[in-house]
Amino acid sequence: MSTVTDLPTAEIQALLPLATRLADAAREATMAHFRSPALAVETKGDLSPVTVADRASEAAMRALLAEHCPDHGILGEEEGASGLDRDFVWVLDPIDGTRSYVTGSPLWGTLIALSWRGRPVLGVLDTPAAGERWIGCVGQPTTRNGTPCRTRDPGDLSRALLYTSTPDLFTDVDRPGFEALSARVADRRFCADCFAYGMVASGWVDIALDPGMKPYDYMALVPVIEGAGGVVTDSTGAPASLTCNGWIVSAGTPAIHAAALEALAGG
Amino acid sequence: MSTVTDLPTAEIQALLPLATRLADAAREATMAHFRSPALAVETKGDLSPVTVADRASEAAMRALLAEHCPDHGILGEEEGASGLDRDFVWVLDPIDGTRSYVTGSPLWGTLIALSWRGRPVLGVLDTPAAGERWIGCVGQPTTRNGTPCRTRDPGDLSRALLYTSTPDLFTDVDRPGFEALSARVADRRFCADCFAYGMVASGWVDIALDPGMKPYDYMALVPVIEGAGGVVTDSTGAPASLTCNGWIVSAGTPAIHAAALEALAGG
Repeated sequence: MSTVTDLPTAEIQALLPLATRLADAAREATMAHFRSPALAVETKGDLSPVTVADRASEAAMRALLAEHCPDHGILGEEEGASGLDRDFVWVLDPIDGTRSYVTGSPLWGTLIALSWRGRPVLGVLDTPAAGERWIGCVGQPTTRNGTPCRTRDPGDLSRALLYTSTPDLFTDVDRPGFEALSARVADRRFCADCFAYGMVASGWVDIALDPGMKPYDYMALVPVIEGAGGVVTDSTGAPASLTCNGWIVSAGTPAIHAAALEALAGG
Repeated sequence: MSTVTDLPTAEIQALLPLATRLADAAREATMAHFRSPALAVETKGDLSPVTVADRASEAAMRALLAEHCPDHGILGEEEGASGLDRDFVWVLDPIDGTRSYVTGSPLWGTLIALSWRGRPVLGVLDTPAAGERWIGCVGQPTTRNGTPCRTRDPGDLSRALLYTSTPDLFTDVDRPGFEALSARVADRRFCADCFAYGMVASGWVDIALDPGMKPYDYMALVPVIEGAGGVVTDSTGAPASLTCNGWIVSAGTPAIHAAALEALAGG
């Protein structure tokens, strides 16, 4: 982990109210369509589903950024990238877990990250239907619904609980490592999407991981989990950043994280 | 499906307020321990987890039944069976989805069924952390949070969304059929436990199924889904009852249900 001394921490923390406003705007846009029988689901080029709610949510957040931070870059799932060469880049996933969203499950969320020179320094994990919001920011503890939260230490990998989004995302290359890790933990569960990373930050579970993630899927999760005492890297142990390999492994403690990486590599 | 003319419908409906009181009592008992860091998780003989919350929830419901229906039978997950030879038997699962419960996920619930001569005639699917309660009863429409709800018709199996609790529950015997069905639906998702059956009843998804279920896992779901327009049977197409094979298949319409059974059998 790099030190935080090089970071413009005060400038980052001053953007927290704006990040909260983005989450509020996204919540209004997503909840307006949640469980609506009229919601049409389209399929994107990568076969992932998208709805009018994804687009309205991202548009609402972009409108606020255009008004308040016109000189910042933006990388959004639905509308692409602009200004990625800027120091500050907002990374937006209007609905993470669209498959949960379109099936009426509350386990979807809006992910809002602020990166500074490629490194995630502020993150909001908001789950409107579940009514939970985690906020992480460099230099201060992560909160869940306004109250500080902490990861837990299960003591040993054999006592750890693991979540991942779906077994169907693992490729033949990834699967042996995942099965090897699964065999060493107490239990594995599926389908929580971004909510699983909030579970790690709150100390309800010990490991959340997903292969093949895009920056808008994971950048917001990094400050949330790190600010609660946990660790997030890619599968090689490199810091989760705009340029990591996207095979994201998070854990509540450095020891559990190291043991998980080792088990994954030994598969 | 048998006709309802032989049922003591008025007598059953008169027990709805009591069923609601059971759900309220269970909600209080379960929420008292939800996400508590002090919650100890034990492992039962069948390797499923159990907590003080499971036991307190079932005890609270049994106390109400002892007071109001001392002549009815009870089959509960934690404390076993008594009076199964009675016409009326209550079937109780104090926490369905204990693995979700112990990981802080809101997708667990309390299941309360009333069976008449082995047939489920009243069901409550209550999900305290998600804040949703489905109630089904013979002779009246299923409600979600007090409002009638209906299943939907996706038109064709290829447009159907499917949920099951976890891929890890399928045996080598069950798996080929499940994979065959998965290949024919639009998407499959995992990990919703009892909540998935509420999704079917509300028309958010089309199929929910699980192999190896016990009566307390599925009896309450039957009136909920049937009262919303759906179909619930075991994997042979036999009505879901105290004596079915426990491989439960539910769908929003008779046609989708028949197509799902056919795909499962062809695997």
